[in-house]
Amino acid sequence: MPHYNLCLLGYGNVGRNLVKLLYDKYFDLRDKHDIEFSITGIATRRIGWLASPDGFDYEDLITDKPLVNIDPAPTNVHEWLKAARTDAMFEITSLNPQTGQPAIDHCVAALEHGAHAITANKGTVVHGYHMLRDLARSQGKRFLFESTVADGMPVFSLFRDVLPVARLRQFDGLLNGTTGVILSEIAAGKSMDEAIQSAQALGIAETDPSADIDGWDAAVKVIALATVLMDVPLKLSDVQVEGIRNLTAEQIQAARRDSKPYKLVSRVTRLGGVDEQRIIATVRPEQVPIESAMGAVGPETMLINFQMDVIPNLVIMEDNAGPYTTAYGLLCDFITAVSGVQERQIRQRPTLLDDRL
Amino acid sequence: MPHYNLCLLGYGNVGRNLVKLLYDKYFDLRDKHDIEFSITGIATRRIGWLASPDGFDYEDLITDKPLVNIDPAPTNVHEWLKAARTDAMFEITSLNPQTGQPAIDHCVAALEHGAHAITANKGTVVHGYHMLRDLARSQGKRFLFESTVADGMPVFSLFRDVLPVARLRQFDGLLNGTTGVILSEIAAGKSMDEAIQSAQALGIAETDPSADIDGWDAAVKVIALATVLMDVPLKLSDVQVEGIRNLTAEQIQAARRDSKPYKLVSRVTRLGGVDEQRIIATVRPEQVPIESAMGAVGPETMLINFQMDVIPNLVIMEDNAGPYTTAYGLLCDFITAVSGVQERQIRQRPTLLDDRL
Repeated sequence: MPHYNLCLLGYGNVGRNLVKLLYDKYFDLRDKHDIEFSITGIATRRIGWLASPDGFDYEDLITDKPLVNIDPAPTNVHEWLKAARTDAMFEITSLNPQTGQPAIDHCVAALEHGAHAITANKGTVVHGYHMLRDLARSQGKRFLFESTVADGMPVFSLFRDVLPVARLRQFDGLLNGTTGVILSEIAAGKSMDEAIQSAQALGIAETDPSADIDGWDAAVKVIALATVLMDVPLKLSDVQVEGIRNLTAEQIQAARRDSKPYKLVSRVTRLGGVDEQRIIATVRPEQVPIESAMGAVGPETMLINFQMDVIPNLVIMEDNAGPYTTAYGLLCDFITAVSGVQERQIRQRPTLLDDRL
Repeated sequence: MPHYNLCLLGYGNVGRNLVKLLYDKYFDLRDKHDIEFSITGIATRRIGWLASPDGFDYEDLITDKPLVNIDPAPTNVHEWLKAARTDAMFEITSLNPQTGQPAIDHCVAALEHGAHAITANKGTVVHGYHMLRDLARSQGKRFLFESTVADGMPVFSLFRDVLPVARLRQFDGLLNGTTGVILSEIAAGKSMDEAIQSAQALGIAETDPSADIDGWDAAVKVIALATVLMDVPLKLSDVQVEGIRNLTAEQIQAARRDSKPYKLVSRVTRLGGVDEQRIIATVRPEQVPIESAMGAVGPETMLINFQMDVIPNLVIMEDNAGPYTTAYGLLCDFITAVSGVQERQIRQRPTLLDDRL
């Protein structure tokens, strides 16, 4: 049975849950997918580049026991990938959405080493998708990123594996849970500042909440989706972005009373005819009727409505992510990478937009 | 490039749309999936067993021009499959939900001939799933049925291809559009009889609407989903079925005024612990809050909420099926069958229920 050495670059909550999930599903992976694995590399800024070619012990990985490194210790990503005899690397460091770095360099290093590169880091898709995809192909490996947009809710794999030959005309949806929670709290009577503080207290909003509130988190996800699913690469400046900061509490509360609550809606529409490869992309607050799926769902729900030639409206949504959900997307990518599931090549269209990223 | 001979058994709306869709996607199939095809067999009760080993002409197929048969004409399904040199057969005759026949026999014939068997006929799954799946495996072919439950909305392929190792604890949802339309019309002021007549006039309800109204259509879909996705085979008598016939117009209208409209809800819950392989399956009218996805969606929406260990609530829904939607499910099955996408074997658990079907 094939045995894979797995390395995690970044080891916070997602990384720990990934390790737990891998072992929870140990027998399913072995019996249903012919996969056995060891965790042979862990790296973080704090603990450095740790490798154990025979595999770290599970108990050591999920407790705070110090992990024993090989001697001499690897001093960079290349030495680490080699020392850990890496077959697949999970890139789960925190995001730099402006550049996608250093995550892109880490993925390049993994692919050049001959390992699959799997990431939860949307910066890699936004800033490096074509390069990483092509590098992966030339290496006979995979670059996969299911967890970048909507926790582990299947989006990229949905189009890759179960919606072949579908033509995506438009998608719209709710891609940012933080603004969902803030809008919901304001609708229930809080001020913007109180709602932000409350979301921060719940661990939903970050200390600097501007990436969420001003719409940039959603915009980056829009770019990732349009790039991969529509084969239309975009820059951030191509997306018309308006966050929720300019809405007043009075507006938000009145909209809720009228049963048309505000939601931060992301939308990408493909123009037709000769403008086929052009799209309009927006992220902005919109009033959505409460008697519709998008209006009715809970504040943290991720939802995407895909409009296709073959299925006019297909909606997929995730009501509340669990602790395993993001890790599950990474695990699915790993299974896809090593199961030899055929990669369906997206037909390349000649386009002037191709090198705009 | 591989070339496949396709045969359609049943040639009504779904069959014609499948032929149109196949030719609409001709270049995508060729360029993205390395698939070329001819339609070499058409059979219906009215026109008999028609075969054209070199392929029928597209124009002839989509107009009402009589199709030219080979001489001597095939006289049964076996002769027909052979004369048409069939590589994949689409079984799209109308359903006998009580027995699944003659669709099951047709699928057996196709598999024994050495062709893939693809069906939109849920009777085959309810009454023949294990036998047809095992026969397909022994022949090195596929038995696939994406279009049986929710038009072409991906359900079986979702679990097969993009939700590996997920453990399904419960699903609930709306599986019958006809009752959705009838309940909606009654809520808006009609009587039950008026609502049924109006749904019949729209072509949504059948002349004898009892299979929909009494919940049996939904119950058959519940059985198909539980059998395949949970590996728990059920008989119709295992499902607690209550249709909408005993609801009064007053109840339905009052529920709508209270913002808790009635929906015909299908639900399957797996019991835990030692009763792991036991489930509770119900189809019954339930009042659903309008401020929830299930309560807010339109009358014809198909919706399933999957509760899994790895994703607590994943909802997939289809707002309005288009003319291509059912045909698209069949096309996806064909692509899956011939693309060599790895079949993920469901782990067999020893169970006393296994031979109950």
